[in-house]
Amino acid sequence: MSFLKRRYHSPGTSPGTYDTPQTREVGEPEVSIVDFSATGWSEEGGVPAMTAPRRFPSRWIRIVGHPNLTVLERLRDDLALDPLALEDIVNVGQRPKLSELDEHLFVTLSVPAVTDGQHFRQLSLYLADDTLVSIYDGDTAFFAPVVRRLEQSETLRERGAPYLFYALMDLAVDSLFPWLEVTGDRLEHLEATILEVPDPGIMADVHGIRRELLVFRRIAWATREVMGNVLRHFDADDSGRIHLYLQDTQDHIVTIIDIVEVLRDVSTTLVELNMSMLSHRMNDVIKVLTVIATVFIPPTFITGIYGMNFDRTAGPFSMPELGWPFAYLSVLGLMLLLILGMLVYFKRKRWF
Amino acid sequence: MSFLKRRYHSPGTSPGTYDTPQTREVGEPEVSIVDFSATGWSEEGGVPAMTAPRRFPSRWIRIVGHPNLTVLERLRDDLALDPLALEDIVNVGQRPKLSELDEHLFVTLSVPAVTDGQHFRQLSLYLADDTLVSIYDGDTAFFAPVVRRLEQSETLRERGAPYLFYALMDLAVDSLFPWLEVTGDRLEHLEATILEVPDPGIMADVHGIRRELLVFRRIAWATREVMGNVLRHFDADDSGRIHLYLQDTQDHIVTIIDIVEVLRDVSTTLVELNMSMLSHRMNDVIKVLTVIATVFIPPTFITGIYGMNFDRTAGPFSMPELGWPFAYLSVLGLMLLLILGMLVYFKRKRWF
Amino acid sequence: MSFLKRRYHSPGTSPGTYDTPQTREVGEPEVSIVDFSATGWSEEGGVPAMTAPRRFPSRWIRIVGHPNLTVLERLRDDLALDPLALEDIVNVGQRPKLSELDEHLFVTLSVPAVTDGQHFRQLSLYLADDTLVSIYDGDTAFFAPVVRRLEQSETLRERGAPYLFYALMDLAVDSLFPWLEVTGDRLEHLEATILEVPDPGIMADVHGIRRELLVFRRIAWATREVMGNVLRHFDADDSGRIHLYLQDTQDHIVTIIDIVEVLRDVSTTLVELNMSMLSHRMNDVIKVLTVIATVFIPPTFITGIYGMNFDRTAGPFSMPELGWPFAYLSVLGLMLLLILGMLVYFKRKRWF
Amino acid sequence: MSFLKRRYHSPGTSPGTYDTPQTREVGEPEVSIVDFSATGWSEEGGVPAMTAPRRFPSRWIRIVGHPNLTVLERLRDDLALDPLALEDIVNVGQRPKLSELDEHLFVTLSVPAVTDGQHFRQLSLYLADDTLVSIYDGDTAFFAPVVRRLEQSETLRERGAPYLFYALMDLAVDSLFPWLEVTGDRLEHLEATILEVPDPGIMADVHGIRRELLVFRRIAWATREVMGNVLRHFDADDSGRIHLYLQDTQDHIVTIIDIVEVLRDVSTTLVELNMSMLSHRMNDVIKVLTVIATVFIPPTFITGIYGMNFDRTAGPFSMPELGWPFAYLSVLGLMLLLILGMLVYFKRKRWF
Amino acid sequence: MSFLKRRYHSPGTSPGTYDTPQTREVGEPEVSIVDFSATGWSEEGGVPAMTAPRRFPSRWIRIVGHPNLTVLERLRDDLALDPLALEDIVNVGQRPKLSELDEHLFVTLSVPAVTDGQHFRQLSLYLADDTLVSIYDGDTAFFAPVVRRLEQSETLRERGAPYLFYALMDLAVDSLFPWLEVTGDRLEHLEATILEVPDPGIMADVHGIRRELLVFRRIAWATREVMGNVLRHFDADDSGRIHLYLQDTQDHIVTIIDIVEVLRDVSTTLVELNMSMLSHRMNDVIKVLTVIATVFIPPTFITGIYGMNFDRTAGPFSMPELGWPFAYLSVLGLMLLLILGMLVYFKRKRWF
Repeated sequence: MSFLKRRYHSPGTSPGTYDTPQTREVGEPEVSIVDFSATGWSEEGGVPAMTAPRRFPSRWIRIVGHPNLTVLERLRDDLALDPLALEDIVNVGQRPKLSELDEHLFVTLSVPAVTDGQHFRQLSLYLADDTLVSIYDGDTAFFAPVVRRLEQSETLRERGAPYLFYALMDLAVDSLFPWLEVTGDRLEHLEATILEVPDPGIMADVHGIRRELLVFRRIAWATREVMGNVLRHFDADDSGRIHLYLQDTQDHIVTIIDIVEVLRDVSTTLVELNMSMLSHRMNDVIKVLTVIATVFIPPTFITGIYGMNFDRTAGPFSMPELGWPFAYLSVLGLMLLLILGMLVYFKRKRWF
Repeated sequence: MSFLKRRYHSPGTSPGTYDTPQTREVGEPEVSIVDFSATGWSEEGGVPAMTAPRRFPSRWIRIVGHPNLTVLERLRDDLALDPLALEDIVNVGQRPKLSELDEHLFVTLSVPAVTDGQHFRQLSLYLADDTLVSIYDGDTAFFAPVVRRLEQSETLRERGAPYLFYALMDLAVDSLFPWLEVTGDRLEHLEATILEVPDPGIMADVHGIRRELLVFRRIAWATREVMGNVLRHFDADDSGRIHLYLQDTQDHIVTIIDIVEVLRDVSTTLVELNMSMLSHRMNDVIKVLTVIATVFIPPTFITGIYGMNFDRTAGPFSMPELGWPFAYLSVLGLMLLLILGMLVYFKRKRWF
Repeated sequence: MSFLKRRYHSPGTSPGTYDTPQTREVGEPEVSIVDFSATGWSEEGGVPAMTAPRRFPSRWIRIVGHPNLTVLERLRDDLALDPLALEDIVNVGQRPKLSELDEHLFVTLSVPAVTDGQHFRQLSLYLADDTLVSIYDGDTAFFAPVVRRLEQSETLRERGAPYLFYALMDLAVDSLFPWLEVTGDRLEHLEATILEVPDPGIMADVHGIRRELLVFRRIAWATREVMGNVLRHFDADDSGRIHLYLQDTQDHIVTIIDIVEVLRDVSTTLVELNMSMLSHRMNDVIKVLTVIATVFIPPTFITGIYGMNFDRTAGPFSMPELGWPFAYLSVLGLMLLLILGMLVYFKRKRWF
Repeated sequence: MSFLKRRYHSPGTSPGTYDTPQTREVGEPEVSIVDFSATGWSEEGGVPAMTAPRRFPSRWIRIVGHPNLTVLERLRDDLALDPLALEDIVNVGQRPKLSELDEHLFVTLSVPAVTDGQHFRQLSLYLADDTLVSIYDGDTAFFAPVVRRLEQSETLRERGAPYLFYALMDLAVDSLFPWLEVTGDRLEHLEATILEVPDPGIMADVHGIRRELLVFRRIAWATREVMGNVLRHFDADDSGRIHLYLQDTQDHIVTIIDIVEVLRDVSTTLVELNMSMLSHRMNDVIKVLTVIATVFIPPTFITGIYGMNFDRTAGPFSMPELGWPFAYLSVLGLMLLLILGMLVYFKRKRWF
Repeated sequence: MSFLKRRYHSPGTSPGTYDTPQTREVGEPEVSIVDFSATGWSEEGGVPAMTAPRRFPSRWIRIVGHPNLTVLERLRDDLALDPLALEDIVNVGQRPKLSELDEHLFVTLSVPAVTDGQHFRQLSLYLADDTLVSIYDGDTAFFAPVVRRLEQSETLRERGAPYLFYALMDLAVDSLFPWLEVTGDRLEHLEATILEVPDPGIMADVHGIRRELLVFRRIAWATREVMGNVLRHFDADDSGRIHLYLQDTQDHIVTIIDIVEVLRDVSTTLVELNMSMLSHRMNDVIKVLTVIATVFIPPTFITGIYGMNFDRTAGPFSMPELGWPFAYLSVLGLMLLLILGMLVYFKRKRWF
C-alpha cells in the first residue's frame, strides 16, 4: 500500500512549499534546452539559463530526473512558474491534473516507468506561448520517440510548442497501453494456472493485480478528465488540427478505460473461478476418501459379528455357523460382493 | 484476451500513420464503384479511379477486405480523406466512433462476422455529400441485403447516398441481433445442463460467455453513442424521414442494450445456480455416505463388546451372556433393529 | 429466454416493413368505431371504413387482436398513419416507446395479459386531434373498465379523445400493479417455504422470478420514459387537468418502479437465505452424524483392547484383568460413562 | 411484504376517486380548527365548518384519523381542495410527494407511528395562503410538540401558516431519527449476538431489518425530493427565514439518508459476519470431532492386530509376542504414546 | 454505532435551539482574540468581549472546547451570528456543511482528533469581512501549525482573515491524511496476519475498519461538497490567489476520496482473502485427518477377518491360513504395504 505513503506535507504547511529537505538533497537533474523551427533545431545540455536567447522561435526545456532547488528556482525566476506548480513538480505521485495559470497550461500526468511497469513516474508539462517545459521523473529513454520525430520531421517542428505538447500528451497516454497488455497477459497466465492446478496462493496474486488495476483505473479516469479540460482549452476553431489530434488521444484514453474495466471484471471472475475450482478439487478428494471408508465399514461390521465369543456349546442357536465347513469362504465371498457392489453402485451414481 | 492485443501503435508514433508493414503486405481488396439514381444504377469492379465521371448522380464506393496502400492513397488523394480517418480504417478492432471532418461524417462500427459470430469485423462509413464510401473488413456477403434492395427499390436509389448511409448503419446495428440470439441459446443450453448434471467445467463456459458479453456490451454502448451523434448530425427538419429512420435504428440499439443487460444478469445467475447445484449434489453424496457409516458404527461397537476375551470362569458377572443359548440370536436381532431404527429415523428426518 | 426470440426482422430489411407473411395469415381482428360527445355515444362493430362520417365529434377506433393487412392498410390510407408506426404495431413485444408523428402522438406500451399475468401484450395508441386509435394485441376484456366509464360518465365523453388517451395510458400503467402483487405473493410463499423446508429446487424458482422481474423492470423504466415524454407533449397550460391526471399516472409508474426494486432486492435476499438455510441444515445433519460416530469410537477402542489375544499365562502383567470377577461389568460401566460423558459435553457445547 | 398490498385502485378507476366503501365506513376523525396570531389563539373542536369566521388571521385545520366522507366533502367544498389531493389523502401508504395546485402546496409525507415505529403513518399538509390543513392518519400525540410551541411562542404564531407548515415538515422529518436509532440499536444487538452465539435464525432477523431499511430508504429519498421542491417553492428572497429553516430541515433529511446508507452497509456486513462465524463454529466442531476419531483409529488398528486368531503353535513367527510376559503392557503403552503423540502434534499445528 | 446516537434534538424542537442543558453545564472554553496585520499581531486570552477595539485590522477569534452559554451569547450579540449557526456549533457530530448567512460564510467540518484518530472533532469557521471565528471542539494543539505560521509569516498576516480561513480549511482537510495512513497501515498489518495465520476473529477487525471507512467516506464526500461551494463563493477574479489555493485544497480532498475508495476495495478484498485462507486451512486439516482415517480402515478390516472365530476343525476351508507358519508375518507385511501404498498414492495425487 505504498501508493499512499508520504504523499502529503504535514498538515498546516504553507501552500507552494517546494523547498523541502528532499529537494535540497537530490542530485543534478539532466536539463536540455532545444530550440526548433521548420528550418532546423539546436540542443544545449547542462545549461541552466532558461532565458538564453533563442536560436529558433520554439523552445522545449526538457528536464529528466528529480529537479533540485537550483532548477526549481530557475523555473520560478526565468519562466515565472507559480510556486503551487513547483510544489506539484516536487511532490511526485500526484493524481493527474491540469491547472490553467494565467492562460498557460500546467499538466501533471502519471506514466508507467519504462523499465519497471509496476511503478508510475510523473510527467509535468508547462506550456507558455511557444515554450514547453517537460519534467519527467524517470529515465531519459522515455522521450526518445518524440526526440527522434522532432529531429526528423519538419512538419512537427513547424507546428511549434503546442504540437509538441500534444505529442508528449499522446506519448504519455499511449505509454499506458503496454502496461495493460502485460497485465492482461498476467491474468491470462493465472487463468491457465487455475484451470490446471487451482491453488489458494493464486488468490494473493489475483488480489495484487486487482489492487494495481484499482490504482491504474484512478489514473486513467483522472487522465481522461485532464484530456477533456485540455480539449476545452484548445478551442476547435483556433487550434485547428491540434484539436483533432487531441480528440484522437482522447479516444485512446477512452479505449484504455474500457480495457481496464474489462480486466477488472476478468480479475473478479478469476477469484470466483479459483474458489470454485479449489472447492471442486477438495470435494473430489473428500468424496473418494469417504467412499473408501464407507465401502469398508459394513464388511468390518460382519467380521465383528464372527469375532464375538459366544459359547457355541450353549445351544444350537449360539453361533452354529462357526462350525460349518464352508462358512468362512461364504463370509469372505459375501464381504467381497458387498464391497464390489457398493463400489459399482457409487460409481454408477457418479459419486467418485 | 486477444481483444486487447496489438491494437495500438507503439507509443510516440506520429498521428495519422497508416503506412505500416501490415498495410503494405495485404492482398488486393475488392473495390466496386456503384453509381445510382431513381432511374437506374451501374457497377464497376476492380476500378481504382474514385473520381471517374459519374453515370448517375449518387455514388457508393464499396471496399471489402483490408485496404492496401494503393487503395488508401486513392482515398486520400481522390476524396481528400483525412489521414486520421485512414489510420482508423487500417487499425481494425477500434471502438465504434464518429468523427465529423469538415461537415462530412466518418463512422467506424463493429459488426459480428457473418460466418463466425464470435469475432467482430470493422465497418467504416464515410459520407461526403452524395458519395458514400464503405470499407468492410470481412466478407462480401455482408452487403448482400442492401445491394439487393438498391437494385430493386427505386425509392431507395432516389434518396441518394445519405439514405444508403442510413441503410448500412441499420444493417450494422441489426447484425448484432443474431449474435444475441445465439448467445441467449447458449446460456439456455448451459442452464439446462446445470439443472441436469452440474459440472465445475461449466463455470469456464459461463465465464467465457460473460467475457464475450462484456466486450459486446462495450461495443453496443459505443454504437449507441455514435447513433446519438449521427442523429444530432441529421437535423430533424432538414433531413426529414432519414431522421425518423435513424430514430428507429436508435430504438433497436437501445433494445439490444436492454437484452445485453438481461443476458449479463442471466449469466451471473447461472454461476450462482451452478455453484448451488454442485454444492447440493456434493452434500447429498456426503450425507448418504455419512449415514451409511453412522448406521454401522454402534452395532460394530456391540460386536466389539462380545469379542472381548474376559474369562467367563472368573465369576458369575464375567460375560455370563456368552453362555446363554439365545444370546447370539438376540444380539443379532438387537443389532438389526438398531440399524433399521436409525435408518428409519434418518429417513424421517429427511437426512438422506 | 423466449423474450428475445424473433423480435427483429432479418438485418437489412427495409424500414416500415409490415407486409409480412405473419400479417397476411392472422385472422380478422375485432374493430369497433365509437363516436362520442357529452350528449351521447354510438358504437359500430365490424366496420372497416375509418373515415365514416362521425355521429359525435370525438372518435375512438378500438382494435382488439393482431391487425391483419386489410386493417393496417385502412389505418395507412384513412388515417395516414406512418409505415414505421404500422411496423411497430405488427412487431409485438416492442420496448414501450413514443413517437411524435407530425404533432400526433404514437405510443406503444406493454401490459400484462389479463388471463395470464406472465406474458405481456402490446397496446398501441395513436392520438390525432380528436381521434384515438387503440390496438391491443390481446383480450377484449382489457378495455372493459374504460368502456363502462365512457358509457356512464358524461364528463369523460365531454373531454374528448385526449382524455380517453389519458384514461387508456392510466389503465395500462395500473395493469402493472396486479402483476407486482402476484409476484410479491409468490416471493412471500417462497420465503415461507425456505424457512420451513429449504430445498435447492427453490433456487430455480427464485431465479425464474428474478428473470421476470428483470424484464418487467425494463418495461417499467421504458414506460416511465414514455410517460415523461407524454407529459412534455401535453403542455401544462394548454391541456389543463389532463396534465394533472397524467402526473398522477406518472406517480403510479414511479411507485411501480420503487416496488420492482424492492422485490428485486427481496429476491436476491431469498437466494442468500436459501443458501444459508440449506447449508445450515446440512451442517446440522453432518454434526449429528459426526457426533454419533465420535461417541462410539473411543469405547470401540476399549473393546478392541480386551479383544486382544495375549496369553494370560505368559506372566502376571499379561492381561490379568480378564480374570478379575467384576472386570467385565466395570469395563461395560466405563464405556457407558464415556459415551454419556461425551454426549453431555457435546450437548453443553451445543454441538448438536 | 404487506407494503405493496392493496395500495392501488383497481385498474381503470376514474382519477380523483375518493368516495370508496372504506371512506364511507371509517369513524369520525378528530377535527380542530385553530386560529392564531401574535396576540393570541383559539381552538374549536368537533366543528365541521371550515369557513367559520376567523378569530385570528391565521388558521390551522388539524385532522387526526382517517377522514370520512363528510370531512372530505367539506375540504372539497369549503377549501376547494382538488379531488386528486383528496384521493391521495384517502389512499394512505403513498410515496411522499408534492403537488402544486394553483400556487397552493399539497404535500404527502410518511412518518413512523409514534407508538409502533415499524409502521408508517401518512401526514398530508395543504397550505393555501394563511390557512394550513394537516391530516394525520394516526395518533393525536404526534402534533403535541408543535401544539405546545404554538400555545407558548408568540414568534411562531406571528409568522403565520407558512411557518407552521415548516414546523410540521420539520417535525415529520425529525420523526425519522428515532426510527433510525431504534434500528441501529437492533443491528448492534444482533451483532453482539452473532459474535457470541452465531445462529442461522439471525439471518431472518437481519433480512427483516434490511427489508425495513429498503422501504425506509425509499421514503427518505422521496422525502428529500419533496423537500427540494418545497425549497424551490419558498423563494429565498421572498420568504426570508422560512427558506433558511427549510434548508436546515433539508440538511436533516440528508443526514438521515447518510445514516440509512451506513445502516444498510452494516446490515450487509452482519450477514457476512454471521455466515463466517457460523461456518467457523461448524468448522471448529467438525475439526474437534475429526481429531477425536482420527486419534483412535490407529490404536484401534493395533488392537485389531492382536485380536487376530493366528495359531501360535503353527511356528515361531506366528504371533509369538502374545506369549511374551510384558507384551500387553508394552502394547498398551505404545497405544497411549500414539494417542498422546497425535494429540500433541495436532495441537501444535493448531488443528483444534 | 455510536455515530448516530443522540445527534438530533427531539422532534418538534424549535429551530436555532442552542440553550440546552448540555450547553449550560460545560466548563469554560478557551477563547483568544488575535488581531493581526502585516506589521504585527497581538493576542488576548480569556477576554469575552468580541467587539473590543482592534489593535490590527484583521481579527481571529479562536475558541477551543465546547462553547458554553456565555460564549454563545457573545457570538450572537457581538457578531450577530445566526441562532441556526449557533445550534450547529453546539451539536457536534454534524455532517460537514456550508451556510451563507448574509454574504458571510459559515462552515462546519469534521477533523480526526489529534490524540485519538478514531474520533472526529468539529471545526466551525465563521468568516465575516475581516473577522474569522474558529470553534474547535477539541485540543488546542490542533491550531499550532497555523498559529506558528501566523506569528512568523508576514505575507500570511498581510492577506487578512480570508487567507486565514483558507489556511484553516487546508489544515482541516490535510488532517484527514494521517488518518488514512494509519488505516492503510492497519489494513496492511491485517493482510500480513491473514496470509500467515488466518483467523475468523480478523473478520471483526476488518469489518470495524470498513465501518470507520464508511463514516470517513461520508465526511470526505461532504467536505468535497463544502469545498466546491467555498470555491464558488470565492470568485476566481476577485479573490485572486486564495481561489488558487482553495483549488489546491480541493485537489487534496479529491485525492483523499480516491484513497478512501481504494482502501474500501482493499478491505473488501481482505474479507474475501481471509475467507478463502480460512477455508483453505480448514480443508487442509480435514484432508489430512481424512487421509489418516482412510489409510487405516482397510487394514483394520483385514485384522477383523483374522479375528473371526470360525472353527478351524470344521473343514479344510475354514480359516486354514490361521495355522500356516508365516501367515501372521505375511498379513502384517500385507497391511504395511497397503498403508504405504495408499499413502504414496494419495501423496502423488497431492491429496495432502
